[in-house]
Amino acid sequence: MLLESLRKEVLHANQEIARRGLAPHTFGNASGIDRNGRKPLVVIKPSGVDYASMTPADLVVADLEGKIVEGSLRPSSDLDTHTLLYREFPEIGGIVHTHSEFATSWAQAARPIPCLGTTHADYFHGPVPVTEPLTAEEVAEAYVRNTGAVIVKRFRREGLDPIGVPGVLVAGHAPFAWGRTPAEAVEHADVLEYIARLAWRSMLLDASESGIPAYVSEHHYQRKHGPRATYGQLKAANQKA
Amino acid sequence: MLLESLRKEVLHANQEIARRGLAPHTFGNASGIDRNGRKPLVVIKPSGVDYASMTPADLVVADLEGKIVEGSLRPSSDLDTHTLLYREFPEIGGIVHTHSEFATSWAQAARPIPCLGTTHADYFHGPVPVTEPLTAEEVAEAYVRNTGAVIVKRFRREGLDPIGVPGVLVAGHAPFAWGRTPAEAVEHADVLEYIARLAWRSMLLDASESGIPAYVSEHHYQRKHGPRATYGQLKAANQKA
Amino acid sequence: MLLESLRKEVLHANQEIARRGLAPHTFGNASGIDRNGRKPLVVIKPSGVDYASMTPADLVVADLEGKIVEGSLRPSSDLDTHTLLYREFPEIGGIVHTHSEFATSWAQAARPIPCLGTTHADYFHGPVPVTEPLTAEEVAEAYVRNTGAVIVKRFRREGLDPIGVPGVLVAGHAPFAWGRTPAEAVEHADVLEYIARLAWRSMLLDASESGIPAYVSEHHYQRKHGPRATYGQLKAANQKA
Amino acid sequence: MLLESLRKEVLHANQEIARRGLAPHTFGNASGIDRNGRKPLVVIKPSGVDYASMTPADLVVADLEGKIVEGSLRPSSDLDTHTLLYREFPEIGGIVHTHSEFATSWAQAARPIPCLGTTHADYFHGPVPVTEPLTAEEVAEAYVRNTGAVIVKRFRREGLDPIGVPGVLVAGHAPFAWGRTPAEAVEHADVLEYIARLAWRSMLLDASESGIPAYVSEHHYQRKHGPRATYGQLKAANQKA
Repeated sequence: MLLESLRKEVLHANQEIARRGLAPHTFGNASGIDRNGRKPLVVIKPSGVDYASMTPADLVVADLEGKIVEGSLRPSSDLDTHTLLYREFPEIGGIVHTHSEFATSWAQAARPIPCLGTTHADYFHGPVPVTEPLTAEEVAEAYVRNTGAVIVKRFRREGLDPIGVPGVLVAGHAPFAWGRTPAEAVEHADVLEYIARLAWRSMLLDASESGIPAYVSEHHYQRKHGPRATYGQLKAANQKA
Repeated sequence: MLLESLRKEVLHANQEIARRGLAPHTFGNASGIDRNGRKPLVVIKPSGVDYASMTPADLVVADLEGKIVEGSLRPSSDLDTHTLLYREFPEIGGIVHTHSEFATSWAQAARPIPCLGTTHADYFHGPVPVTEPLTAEEVAEAYVRNTGAVIVKRFRREGLDPIGVPGVLVAGHAPFAWGRTPAEAVEHADVLEYIARLAWRSMLLDASESGIPAYVSEHHYQRKHGPRATYGQLKAANQKA
Repeated sequence: MLLESLRKEVLHANQEIARRGLAPHTFGNASGIDRNGRKPLVVIKPSGVDYASMTPADLVVADLEGKIVEGSLRPSSDLDTHTLLYREFPEIGGIVHTHSEFATSWAQAARPIPCLGTTHADYFHGPVPVTEPLTAEEVAEAYVRNTGAVIVKRFRREGLDPIGVPGVLVAGHAPFAWGRTPAEAVEHADVLEYIARLAWRSMLLDASESGIPAYVSEHHYQRKHGPRATYGQLKAANQKA
Repeated sequence: MLLESLRKEVLHANQEIARRGLAPHTFGNASGIDRNGRKPLVVIKPSGVDYASMTPADLVVADLEGKIVEGSLRPSSDLDTHTLLYREFPEIGGIVHTHSEFATSWAQAARPIPCLGTTHADYFHGPVPVTEPLTAEEVAEAYVRNTGAVIVKRFRREGLDPIGVPGVLVAGHAPFAWGRTPAEAVEHADVLEYIARLAWRSMLLDASESGIPAYVSEHHYQRKHGPRATYGQLKAANQKA
């Protein structure tokens, strides 16, 4: 069986989606990528298998064009979004898609989540962006792949760094989050839901959409990502307590 | 004992109402119908029996005119709404009534739930409709039956398909959901609550009531219900992940 | 030990406050009254004893003037509100005070909860009333007793029946609920919280404060309280399913 | 090992943060101080150790200048806020920092929490204050320490008593709470979250920001803190039931 260790990481990330309540029913999926082999391989959740009974062997292995390399089950129907993001964002190693309640509510309102506090600034360098809606042509041509394409378009247009901004809201749909590993991706999906909750409640108290001063959010960002940060310090800063 | 297998399905659907937190106290009920016998028979929750101790034998069997065919306990006081819906919507095989928190809040505001995202579009073809309030005459004549009648009137007036739109809000009251089976009905009741939560939060972020473009919701609807969908693909699309 | 059976009922009602999450910390208390003896006796929660370890013997027995008749622990500091309500509302047999989240939020906004749906109408005949704030004189003279007095004043002024309207919001404070027994009182405290949640969410969807038509709420009220209702039918109607 | 008993108290307070859901991930920390030795010593949570596996020996002991006196792990990154508060508020013996959902939402909106009811008045003498945002200079110079400094500035400017007002919102960040002991600090952090929830919901019902009359809040405050209150009575009043 290919990629045993990555399969376990991806299985664990999928189980975390359920355990943390990020997706009711089976509205969610996680994947990971191994970029070290002859060609990069993606491990992704199979479609419609219950989290409780899922084993590493149930996961599906595909290449970056979405061709199944190993696995008898059908992959998640969102596979083409995942592969496009892996192709375009070479820094990332895991992706998590949820329909978590507050992040999805912002996505449905097609509004970016402003950076209103340090909980946000510790994880996202600036607002959580929201995509343009897909056009009728994009839907007709390749709905799932173009969901990835509108994400990348937003990042390119605003010059965003997928490591500094580890997630996005797809307008009228729901969030995607990612990270260097599947575990980091699911952590970011969970934090994204939490900052969506905080920001939603703050906006109803008439918080200013301009958010905290840039020198505060930059301070937090540099603690994690600046030239003086090492990965170990990053991890510790990340934990924040 | 008649309809042993259907009794189990209906019992399970009733227990799911409680397990998913869709109805506090005993504000909820589920039923199923067997249309294969000499005359159609409905199995429904008895009134005021605790979910934890309920057995298949406690359920009540009635015909489509509400006459008790088997069972020593009184049926749910909402029986006449269920039988009317089964008479008018021959496609459906199970009905679930809840007072779930967010769907009921929309019902109390007498507002349809706009289709603001794909979570909604995967399950409901268009907004979740809301009935007219019952008139004083309708209340006086037959309150429970006419609760069914105002539901059907809304569907006829808007040309809605009960399979495409598997639920409704009764103004000033609460939601009803249904499906091909009791299990599908309770799943739709649960999804209805979830999309009611999402939409409620999105509306407070000033989401546009016009919702997502029709070409997106149609794309999702056709994946599940269009001519190219088979039941198996439907099921998989339904699971969405 | 006096009133063993009532002690058990009151203990159970106090435990239900905690189990249903109606009062964080020890912000809550339940009592019951025995009106059958030579003089009426109230059984009430002692102050500051943990719910988990409380036994029937820990409860305090007082007369209607608040004099301790049996018990070594101090009674709830709200005793004088309870005794005043028992004196003024002879129909009631149990009282529950909570700081439950949504009912308290309405109380803090000093707004009555409008009757927006049948969940409400099944339990409350009309809006849940809110008291006037206590005056400085009322606070200085006897804060706890006068909390009861402003409740009674509201009921007298509006001609409300404590059986038809089994609870109230004390402005700037929190709800009190009651019933024929301690068990009914805690059920009403729980339903009050639920209808407070529903109404709060409906109001944010711009529900009309005028609520459902009177002929609907009257229909529900008469099902439970009208001349054709017996206690058994009342109970069944109450269960609603 | 120094301060065994205080270590246990601080460990327990840290575990309570998690148990009560006051801080997702590891966004929270608790400390306590021993002011009885030759020099005051602070016991604080180590950075990034999981609550479930933390033992008293993992805690870090530091002096009031933040110098580590005992412990092999790095202390919480918020240590300098804690030590500054202990230096400036000699009455307090424990500090708890959380990112609890509603209190943080008020902090992000940079609004004080008005005293809208007696739940609030029992614990906070007046509104929960909010700091000024840190200036760019304060962030650059010493972000963590100056987080403490803006708290103290707010208390000095408004003449607030840290025992009467046992917590604060740091604008754009989150709450800090404290008390005479670590246990009292975590209780205040929990109550602060609850009154933040109540006030948030009340404000959305258009509660008046002026809150309850001063004679009511004073009555509650004097029950706990006035000349006629002893510590024992304080405790009982505190429990309120």
